[in-house]
Amino acid sequence: MARIGIIGGAGRMGQALTRAITAAGHEVSGAADKGDDVASVADSSDALVDFSSPLALTGNLHAAIGAGVPILIGTTGLGEEHHVAIDNAARAIPVLQTGNTSLGVTLLAHLVREAAARLDADWDIEIVEMHHRMKVDAPSGTALLLGEAAAAGRGITLADNKESGRDGHTGARAPGAIGFAALRGGTVAGEHAVILAGEQERVTLSHSAEDRMIFAHGAVKGATWMIGQDAGRYRMEQVLGL
Amino acid sequence: MARIGIIGGAGRMGQALTRAITAAGHEVSGAADKGDDVASVADSSDALVDFSSPLALTGNLHAAIGAGVPILIGTTGLGEEHHVAIDNAARAIPVLQTGNTSLGVTLLAHLVREAAARLDADWDIEIVEMHHRMKVDAPSGTALLLGEAAAAGRGITLADNKESGRDGHTGARAPGAIGFAALRGGTVAGEHAVILAGEQERVTLSHSAEDRMIFAHGAVKGATWMIGQDAGRYRMEQVLGL
Amino acid sequence: MARIGIIGGAGRMGQALTRAITAAGHEVSGAADKGDDVASVADSSDALVDFSSPLALTGNLHAAIGAGVPILIGTTGLGEEHHVAIDNAARAIPVLQTGNTSLGVTLLAHLVREAAARLDADWDIEIVEMHHRMKVDAPSGTALLLGEAAAAGRGITLADNKESGRDGHTGARAPGAIGFAALRGGTVAGEHAVILAGEQERVTLSHSAEDRMIFAHGAVKGATWMIGQDAGRYRMEQVLGL
Amino acid sequence: MARIGIIGGAGRMGQALTRAITAAGHEVSGAADKGDDVASVADSSDALVDFSSPLALTGNLHAAIGAGVPILIGTTGLGEEHHVAIDNAARAIPVLQTGNTSLGVTLLAHLVREAAARLDADWDIEIVEMHHRMKVDAPSGTALLLGEAAAAGRGITLADNKESGRDGHTGARAPGAIGFAALRGGTVAGEHAVILAGEQERVTLSHSAEDRMIFAHGAVKGATWMIGQDAGRYRMEQVLGL
Repeated sequence: MARIGIIGGAGRMGQALTRAITAAGHEVSGAADKGDDVASVADSSDALVDFSSPLALTGNLHAAIGAGVPILIGTTGLGEEHHVAIDNAARAIPVLQTGNTSLGVTLLAHLVREAAARLDADWDIEIVEMHHRMKVDAPSGTALLLGEAAAAGRGITLADNKESGRDGHTGARAPGAIGFAALRGGTVAGEHAVILAGEQERVTLSHSAEDRMIFAHGAVKGATWMIGQDAGRYRMEQVLGL
Repeated sequence: MARIGIIGGAGRMGQALTRAITAAGHEVSGAADKGDDVASVADSSDALVDFSSPLALTGNLHAAIGAGVPILIGTTGLGEEHHVAIDNAARAIPVLQTGNTSLGVTLLAHLVREAAARLDADWDIEIVEMHHRMKVDAPSGTALLLGEAAAAGRGITLADNKESGRDGHTGARAPGAIGFAALRGGTVAGEHAVILAGEQERVTLSHSAEDRMIFAHGAVKGATWMIGQDAGRYRMEQVLGL
Repeated sequence: MARIGIIGGAGRMGQALTRAITAAGHEVSGAADKGDDVASVADSSDALVDFSSPLALTGNLHAAIGAGVPILIGTTGLGEEHHVAIDNAARAIPVLQTGNTSLGVTLLAHLVREAAARLDADWDIEIVEMHHRMKVDAPSGTALLLGEAAAAGRGITLADNKESGRDGHTGARAPGAIGFAALRGGTVAGEHAVILAGEQERVTLSHSAEDRMIFAHGAVKGATWMIGQDAGRYRMEQVLGL
Repeated sequence: MARIGIIGGAGRMGQALTRAITAAGHEVSGAADKGDDVASVADSSDALVDFSSPLALTGNLHAAIGAGVPILIGTTGLGEEHHVAIDNAARAIPVLQTGNTSLGVTLLAHLVREAAARLDADWDIEIVEMHHRMKVDAPSGTALLLGEAAAAGRGITLADNKESGRDGHTGARAPGAIGFAALRGGTVAGEHAVILAGEQERVTLSHSAEDRMIFAHGAVKGATWMIGQDAGRYRMEQVLGL
């Protein structure tokens, strides 16, 4: 049983984390939303999980270093300076930063990279995702993460090969393109499919999230996995042994 | 056993029709690609199937009227003047004009209209299709046909509610929108799915074409169905008894 | 705003109903788990929803008749005698009994019947469902309900044509069979697909439940729909205007 | 350009191979159906492809050894003695034996093994496949191949954990089971999906064959890949660099 401290504990994700920590048989050592709370939460924790805000990142990393405990960063919207701060912190403690804490998506990205690396470039890659009607951007961050994995597998850059939002007279598909399509509707928590379409056959690798709790479960798994690890910067893939 | 004449017999669709006619136990009475041939083919046929060109349409209708045989028009790219010519011909003979002769798609459009009519407007409608990499336009004509069916069922016009090619900062989904997404890759003959996404549940109605032969099979079924019918303009839905 | 009474209020479904009633802007007039409570709950309600047990059915119907309020019966495991009791009660009050209160599944069953009625018998019908790992029977009741709809559309009886659990040397598919396959795993709330497979094309009609709350939402919709209706026995299809 | 000899050239697969060899820019050096033909075909070939029969296997291997050319064995129904013969031949020439020559399925099996190895055993594994109505056995050989890959990834044996053809009162899912379900209908060339269902999320890895030609294309790719390789026994995975 580990004592896990939540940073950004007031929101929806904080509540999800509380449930996930308990469900996994661990203990919530504290939940902090302000800087001075963080240090005291860190002192009574075996690991920290941070889904707060980029503005709070530096303070949170300092609290983790001060207490000598690992920290998982699930905050989105990080800039270059935040990554530098994470790298610095990772000299003192284990830090795991990720854009998606779901184990399934983490595995999927790994498989997509592998598939794209093994198949010839004449297998066309398409990524389609569906999310609830309130989502304001397309394609989803996770779809782009999967596109990056496909591009990396194929040894190309996504930016140069991305084809998103086809409509009208598009002409034939560009060779090597990685296509994106976004569906929106209802209350869908998140579905992603990566289609590799070859000559008369297709391989499809997909993920379906039934509930946003999976991001909390994955974060708890990532945080506890770091306990006892050496200082360093880790990725979700490593939690799965990838 | 019926004698079926093919107009536009030289191309890929002509060959597909020849196979479909034979497979259904009927006889190819002739295949014509030029105007004067059409009349003689019509004279020895119980029904005609026309997948030639809009330019040939008037001549083909005259040949069918002259021989007093029904004609199925699968030609695409028709304008207003062609529809007038078809209506005129339909006073003398049975004529069936359609943008998609597949039985499955015809049924699907019917079911989509029914579903859209029965569900409240807070069920979001999304249409996603996949076709081979050579297809030059998006969304597909069949996707639009399905969108028209959904709009008709809901009592709205598609043009005012179409949302195609989402990309970037789109904002939340517009209430009542009918969304379209197009995937391209490999050699996919044609897949269409209409998703109705409500509060925590989804109904999905889809069609998968394994081979373009289905358009030929449906055309043969439509042509033979017209034999013995009264003069008039028919739709594929009626062939299925819809 | 309607006052809705819950019978069988202590369990998981009772809690889901409470949330669904509130979410729809209605009021929970009371929740009863024992016979004597039911009458007093009925007296202060505009409609009742019963997800208790077959043993309690007769008492619940009497309470509804006594108060002159409609009742929706979602209880499963009903026998012939229960249906007789429901028919009798339906002479005095509106009663809606159903094996699945989801609007989406109700619509799907209607579409399946329609599709099966319109397509020739050489379109093979397969039904595949997936549920969470704790489910103890296969195929699911909803899969069977969809199979009944398909059989009714085709004018055959399901019992004579059901082919479930294929394994080993099965031989070729029996003409006219309606096949069932059951997948089990994880926490899947419920997914059903009815596949109509013809010559080189397929039509697939499917439903995905993201959360078991949909059964509560549909029950509330059904119960409120009955308020003001004449006495009689109703079906979920009618709530959707099918 | 390679010269490829076909053994078992008279059947449907022989014709498919002829088309695949030509499509890939290679040359059919000959097609043999009897033992004495095989030697002369082998002498004029750079590689052989054998889809004949287990009875002919030994003779075919001898012909390949005699001519010093690699041979791909796609014949099914091999017994222990055949595998011994293949191992012996592989001391003299490159031999690739496989139950499925499709590149997509080969990749899929690799990804399934990887996924099963990385996810905890509480992710339930289900395999569902669909084939045309004439298929006489269930589950398909390819489904079993995928099940073997999943079992290998998880470090268990398939035989001890296989759960196929669920029907009736099954009880809850056995922990660690690998489930199989078989759908039959229409003209489906072959679809396979491996579902890994965890706590509120699912990863699905699937393959769709649009046409049986893919098995011929994969066989040609495998055969040409062996040209110039050292003697030894190879697997399709290696053709993809897996």
